[in-house]
Amino acid sequence: MNNLLAHIQNPTDLRKLSKNQLPQLAQELREFIIDIVSQKEGHLGASLGVIELTIALHYIFDTPKDLLVWDVGHQAYPHKILTERKDVFYKYREKEGISGFPKRSESIYDTFGVGHSSTSISAALGMALASHLHGEKEKHHIAVIGDASIASGMAFEGLNHAGVTKANLLVILNDNAMGIDPSVGALKDYLTSVKEGKNPKINNIIKSLNFDYSGPIDGHDLEKLTTELERLKKIKGPKFLHIITTKGKGLSFAEEDQLTYHAPGKFDKLTGKLIRPENENPAPKFQDVFGHTLVELAQQNDKIVGITPAMPSGSSLKYMMEQFPDRAFDVGIAEQHAVTLAAGMATQGLTVFCNIYSTFMQRAYDQVIHDVAIQNLPVIFCLDRAGFVGEDGATHHGLFDLAYMSCIPNMMVYAPMNEIDLRNILYTSSLGLENPISIRYPRGKGHNPDWRKPFEKIEIGKIKKIKEGKTIAVLSTGTIGHTVQLAIENSNNKNSIAHYHVGWVKPLDEKKLNTIFNTYTTIITIEEGTLIGGFGSIIDTFATKNNFKNKIMNYGVPDVFIEHGTVQELFEEVKLDEKNLTLIFNTLS
Amino acid sequence: MNNLLAHIQNPTDLRKLSKNQLPQLAQELREFIIDIVSQKEGHLGASLGVIELTIALHYIFDTPKDLLVWDVGHQAYPHKILTERKDVFYKYREKEGISGFPKRSESIYDTFGVGHSSTSISAALGMALASHLHGEKEKHHIAVIGDASIASGMAFEGLNHAGVTKANLLVILNDNAMGIDPSVGALKDYLTSVKEGKNPKINNIIKSLNFDYSGPIDGHDLEKLTTELERLKKIKGPKFLHIITTKGKGLSFAEEDQLTYHAPGKFDKLTGKLIRPENENPAPKFQDVFGHTLVELAQQNDKIVGITPAMPSGSSLKYMMEQFPDRAFDVGIAEQHAVTLAAGMATQGLTVFCNIYSTFMQRAYDQVIHDVAIQNLPVIFCLDRAGFVGEDGATHHGLFDLAYMSCIPNMMVYAPMNEIDLRNILYTSSLGLENPISIRYPRGKGHNPDWRKPFEKIEIGKIKKIKEGKTIAVLSTGTIGHTVQLAIENSNNKNSIAHYHVGWVKPLDEKKLNTIFNTYTTIITIEEGTLIGGFGSIIDTFATKNNFKNKIMNYGVPDVFIEHGTVQELFEEVKLDEKNLTLIFNTLS
Repeated sequence: MNNLLAHIQNPTDLRKLSKNQLPQLAQELREFIIDIVSQKEGHLGASLGVIELTIALHYIFDTPKDLLVWDVGHQAYPHKILTERKDVFYKYREKEGISGFPKRSESIYDTFGVGHSSTSISAALGMALASHLHGEKEKHHIAVIGDASIASGMAFEGLNHAGVTKANLLVILNDNAMGIDPSVGALKDYLTSVKEGKNPKINNIIKSLNFDYSGPIDGHDLEKLTTELERLKKIKGPKFLHIITTKGKGLSFAEEDQLTYHAPGKFDKLTGKLIRPENENPAPKFQDVFGHTLVELAQQNDKIVGITPAMPSGSSLKYMMEQFPDRAFDVGIAEQHAVTLAAGMATQGLTVFCNIYSTFMQRAYDQVIHDVAIQNLPVIFCLDRAGFVGEDGATHHGLFDLAYMSCIPNMMVYAPMNEIDLRNILYTSSLGLENPISIRYPRGKGHNPDWRKPFEKIEIGKIKKIKEGKTIAVLSTGTIGHTVQLAIENSNNKNSIAHYHVGWVKPLDEKKLNTIFNTYTTIITIEEGTLIGGFGSIIDTFATKNNFKNKIMNYGVPDVFIEHGTVQELFEEVKLDEKNLTLIFNTLS
Repeated sequence: MNNLLAHIQNPTDLRKLSKNQLPQLAQELREFIIDIVSQKEGHLGASLGVIELTIALHYIFDTPKDLLVWDVGHQAYPHKILTERKDVFYKYREKEGISGFPKRSESIYDTFGVGHSSTSISAALGMALASHLHGEKEKHHIAVIGDASIASGMAFEGLNHAGVTKANLLVILNDNAMGIDPSVGALKDYLTSVKEGKNPKINNIIKSLNFDYSGPIDGHDLEKLTTELERLKKIKGPKFLHIITTKGKGLSFAEEDQLTYHAPGKFDKLTGKLIRPENENPAPKFQDVFGHTLVELAQQNDKIVGITPAMPSGSSLKYMMEQFPDRAFDVGIAEQHAVTLAAGMATQGLTVFCNIYSTFMQRAYDQVIHDVAIQNLPVIFCLDRAGFVGEDGATHHGLFDLAYMSCIPNMMVYAPMNEIDLRNILYTSSLGLENPISIRYPRGKGHNPDWRKPFEKIEIGKIKKIKEGKTIAVLSTGTIGHTVQLAIENSNNKNSIAHYHVGWVKPLDEKKLNTIFNTYTTIITIEEGTLIGGFGSIIDTFATKNNFKNKIMNYGVPDVFIEHGTVQELFEEVKLDEKNLTLIFNTLS
């Protein structure tokens, strides 16, 4: 057979191959992925690194009866292709297409939905304990986890529990020394020393936790992989296999620049040259407004420090890390630690910018309440990727932070309207606050190429009028204010509608709100976040408390999980795009 | 000196003693604590276990300049007594008295507020990195953490980061093999083997994480402790000292029954006999309604499993653990793991009751969203200690769950009114749900000794009328409904006021709410949780959406952290006690 992959729809087909055909299949699978991923956006490097492992797992184990859990899921493309999704693969991450991550509703082979890191051991252990109760003694449960993810606390909790069970669990550490950015931390150093033969395999950390440890072995050697998996299949109880892989394996430029080719966007598959869209939006990414502004502020104030849990590139904290390596910290995938570390630093008078994506801040909710807010430490939380993130889908949208932050006493909540507003709230926060603050801003770009204006201090708790109007007041928070502006301009009711930017969801500008409720008959709230518990609900409660009887309309994200698609498509889905907002404004009287 | 303690107000006084006087001081301190704690409620065992360590730390280190962080803080009584709070110690945990936990606002010696576990390493590391930036090279930073707490993921994250820094950090593992309940997990087994000399000290887990490891040493031997701390003081960088202590040390019955004497309530200090109040409320604790009901349900349905993160006694899951040891899991202080383990089990068709205190569920917020709700797995979350917990104070009140759970799509939220209602919602949930559910109930007892009624199924999403009335509708959620009942009975407006129990904060009974808003002029919401984002705000938004113009009044917990006191005192403070509610009802027209 010249083309093995063409004949494989599922693992049953795969298992019909002879062992010596597997390297050819790996080659074909690699080319298939490179062909498609180079032509659209997606996660490349992680998937290229586990092609052999994926083939070996589905070849040796009886999936989907045996249960396979991928951690994070960036690496699941070969898995998807080998499990009945080859023909629809070209539509991954598109609206109505398959997800970029494993997803239970998509396939029986996707045993557990992932996206955030370090869940696989706990999930697979839960499955294994369930199988044990069901008397399914021969069933295998496999968690594949990377070296960046296993360093997160939750993974340790899973190992710590698994080690005292008799669960039929195999944990495979896919060790490529990378997360999205390079892995960090003491465990990573330890794993490196193990790989380099500097540490005895016996009595290592994993073995200390009661696991049957084997490895490290070459994760690109199909012969070694299949042999070892066959051996492990016969061992009962918790087992641990340490494999060494190379992120971007088989594509020289991706191996050499693993960070760029983690998710490179479109690229020339021969040269690796990144293909950028023509007429690219000249505005900066919001993350770069954060990253560059923080450097400016840090130059002026040596009390400023920055923290990121494993997102130096994604948050653009990397700029500060380059310029002030002693004052900017990548702590690895450790959001809980990041927040309490920030609190500890704040007790000693530092001005701490702790940058965590909105969706990942959910990981440190207790630390925000217990270690920062109760003690009223003025930590500055910068929540990147707030709102819709687009193609990463339900696991990654940052739609809950307005709700989960606003209910915390002492916490201030600000959603800037644009790049300049973001820049100024960072500046204002750097001057010293009396409370912690949560600043949320979206993924991607805004609309202001000329954003490096002189700093202006933002007055705490003040509503800003954007546009005059006669009878209707639109209150928007965050960058959706830009869409609101356009929609008002387009609407038939342009003259009737006033527009206010309520950057401060908390504290509320009660004085101005009183004026607004007394001035306009209709009040409309608009936000890129959950309707329940969000900005609109806070305005509703304000009206209740003050016995206002105006007509109030709340627009935001309804109480369902929103799947993947472009950000624009998702705005259309929830009717918060310019066209739908214009329609809403047109029907007002 | 016959009485050393009488002359010690602070560590400066302590340091004037000679080393050979320290054992006598330890004895006096032990007696002082036993005298006071036996006469009131408080945490006994942990504090008795660290008397020698506390003395040694303050004797050797230059507190408060050197920064000492206690993990959890149950063990901080000797610390408080030696640091200027001896004379007010008898008022610990009382309203306006000192806190049961270290607290920054209380003393310069309390460098970091604690209560929840496993924060100390991150906090102390943050302080140490700040000192490094400040050029304070001689300053010491010490985290004291127990063996149950160090097994939580967050502690691992802190160690993993600290190991790659040059922070002047000393982590002291206070290993007594107990949390509140006995410690569990593979790390605990490993530590036990280290203690018993079965594992070489070299190349252990801690050393693998780049720490200078020493120990284990006897934590009750002041000579060894002070000598070792003096030695460690001279070593730069991250250091780790493993000490072995006995919880309840020096009080035979407390050493023998460490679980009971963790926080025994009043007891006879000679015999250990627990002193129970006369005329004790004959109603059960809500936790026991959960614990016993779950056993009944598990007897009838072998798909039912139970999970607790380190609270078998506190949650009363211990009853199921005794009867069905294979189906009830104590996973240690690992809330994140507990939730995702539950999700993994639920994928395999098990009916999972995951019991986590409201305040600790904050630790697993992302897992609730990402692993349970997005996949719509029908995990049954039982949130004990929801509402005010009383003497444990701000760190432990469960006031946020109505807000943080309600904004999650797919999640159902139920707050039973009493024991029978709790029992029936557990039963209803056990029959199989289409969604995850969050069931909240308070610490302590209710008012129904006769609670073991035949099971009745609760209709999902239905409001229940408690009392007829003419013009005013009170909507209460949860057990505060009992207080509301009494207050209505007492009020002048008894005949005007109808009372509805809105157990289902989500999904809302929109049909019945429509009727209620059309029937009554005034709507009053009452809840034991945050006003922002809570039940009342959801009713406000319902009214907004449906354009109702009734007068609405929201009663709940205001946007401040509520400190410690008896539950009754705290209700009075926020004006949700019977007397204040009666006053509110009296003034209605």
